[in-house]
Amino acid sequence: MKLATLRDGTRDGQLAVVARDLKTAALADGIAPTLQRALDDWSFIAPQLEQLATELNGGRARHSFEFEPKNCMAPLPRAFQWADGSAYVNHVELVRRARNADMPESFWHEPLMYQGGSDDFIGPTGDILLGSEQWGIDFEGEVAAVTGDVGMGADAEEAAQQIRLLMLVNDVSLRHLIPAELAKGFGFLQSKPATAFSPVALTPDELGAAWQDGKVQLPLRATWNGVLVGQPHAGTDMVFSFPQLIVHLAKTRNVRAGSIIGSGTVSNKDASRGYTCIAEKRCLETIADGAPKTPFMQFGDTIKLEMLDAGGKSLFGAIEQTVVQDAKAAKAAQAH
Amino acid sequence: MKLATLRDGTRDGQLAVVARDLKTAALADGIAPTLQRALDDWSFIAPQLEQLATELNGGRARHSFEFEPKNCMAPLPRAFQWADGSAYVNHVELVRRARNADMPESFWHEPLMYQGGSDDFIGPTGDILLGSEQWGIDFEGEVAAVTGDVGMGADAEEAAQQIRLLMLVNDVSLRHLIPAELAKGFGFLQSKPATAFSPVALTPDELGAAWQDGKVQLPLRATWNGVLVGQPHAGTDMVFSFPQLIVHLAKTRNVRAGSIIGSGTVSNKDASRGYTCIAEKRCLETIADGAPKTPFMQFGDTIKLEMLDAGGKSLFGAIEQTVVQDAKAAKAAQAH
Repeated sequence: MKLATLRDGTRDGQLAVVARDLKTAALADGIAPTLQRALDDWSFIAPQLEQLATELNGGRARHSFEFEPKNCMAPLPRAFQWADGSAYVNHVELVRRARNADMPESFWHEPLMYQGGSDDFIGPTGDILLGSEQWGIDFEGEVAAVTGDVGMGADAEEAAQQIRLLMLVNDVSLRHLIPAELAKGFGFLQSKPATAFSPVALTPDELGAAWQDGKVQLPLRATWNGVLVGQPHAGTDMVFSFPQLIVHLAKTRNVRAGSIIGSGTVSNKDASRGYTCIAEKRCLETIADGAPKTPFMQFGDTIKLEMLDAGGKSLFGAIEQTVVQDAKAAKAAQAH
Repeated sequence: MKLATLRDGTRDGQLAVVARDLKTAALADGIAPTLQRALDDWSFIAPQLEQLATELNGGRARHSFEFEPKNCMAPLPRAFQWADGSAYVNHVELVRRARNADMPESFWHEPLMYQGGSDDFIGPTGDILLGSEQWGIDFEGEVAAVTGDVGMGADAEEAAQQIRLLMLVNDVSLRHLIPAELAKGFGFLQSKPATAFSPVALTPDELGAAWQDGKVQLPLRATWNGVLVGQPHAGTDMVFSFPQLIVHLAKTRNVRAGSIIGSGTVSNKDASRGYTCIAEKRCLETIADGAPKTPFMQFGDTIKLEMLDAGGKSLFGAIEQTVVQDAKAAKAAQAH
């Protein structure tokens, strides 16, 4: 089934079931008010949502209405955990190569993962509000899994069973703030502003054979200012599957229901597939010509992230955002 | 007022108002079911909670009962954000000095801060469940602020106005996992397992004159295996106040209601005040004798963190935890 969260003036929005073709939706208010509440009691709630989805897909849902991504918040407008991996190690290697740094061999065996802020996610068509272009504004196209409860020390099989939903992500990054933060060792903080998610979160069975080995076996399409700049295959070159990423996170603690685990920027070794973040393009330019030439995003730029099924139909709906200057953050940025 | 969350079988527990002397409590179920809900709508909810607190403190609350910290979850059993600073720069400098590394001068002007996991907090008397003593188990005594909504680019004055509550923290750390994680640059993940909080969260006015300049002007007491090992003053040597820490976090994004901002390990330059984490003691030993001699925590060890008012009465109640081996995590730790 496909789920979305509709804007209703509350912080957590209202849970809705969305038809497979993304044309209609039905409120799930008689079942669970919010997606987090559904995840908190999934084995009891999910079958009821599935039944509503079946009715909706069969054209038999009583109060269905037109599904409009513009009315969507992120499926989880705020979450208790957002942990983002770097499973496409090719991306990490490129970034390192561009600055003449070797990549430790261990990166092929143990995931890189950072803890992100999860209190204020952006809906699929929400503006990317930021203070300054000098921060080096970039998009990052990713896939993410939403989990149930995973106990500390879980193995990959247990982790796989707890993957409830999948979403697309725009992990907005501020490239010029990253080097100083990573040098401190404490990870990303200011360099990772609010993250955006696709209109729809779907259960893995919606992908059919395209959900295999704990990976989504489809290309992720990135369109920047109307130009398709990348369509790397999310199942290729993903060195760590979602279950493996979850196992890494759960080594020393429980991972609780509603946790979001990101894949990291989708990236293929085959550079002809293009890119889902500008930093990677700039790295390729640096390796080829000694310097990057593609600039980062400017205010007014747009980014669209989408994944299509074999028949060319959008699976998650599109993330479609515009970068906009926030007046208060701009003033504060100048004051610092 | 003082607030606590009582265990009731749900993930978020039940909000209660606690008397100033920590002897009695009253359920706030007629006002707000959970602390997060109160924080989501604070200006409307807080006055009602204050009124109940006044009745309770005056012995006039209708259904009061004995307050028992053992029945407490963390005030926020799960939160949408946990961002922990390192405001006691003395601690950071000691750690660096012990390994013959200079501390960048910028650390005195810009806070170190990491994003922590917030999906599974431990109550004040909950066991510290971990897989292996080889991980280098340590406690870290801290103070934390809980915020309302703080807009991106907020200044210190706005941030100060949004400090709703204060709590004590045991930011459990796995010292032997930290070096490899920090070397990756992506920050703490496995090295920061679940965090524990004091029984009570209190509004800053409960501290009277001890809440000054955005800092708690009282000693934090750490008792390890029954021995008082530290009582550093939380208002001394705190280089960044809570408002300053919040400003740092809010530079590139909104900080939403219920975010928890930590002070970092409380530490004084005056070493006679002792320590609130073992790592600091080991650093002092290394600087003095070339090697640490105090071991990290063993299974069965206990840690108590508490803050007393001028009259010697506990303000937040005590964090009192025992380190216990988790069988499943132990098995997984051996398998890796």
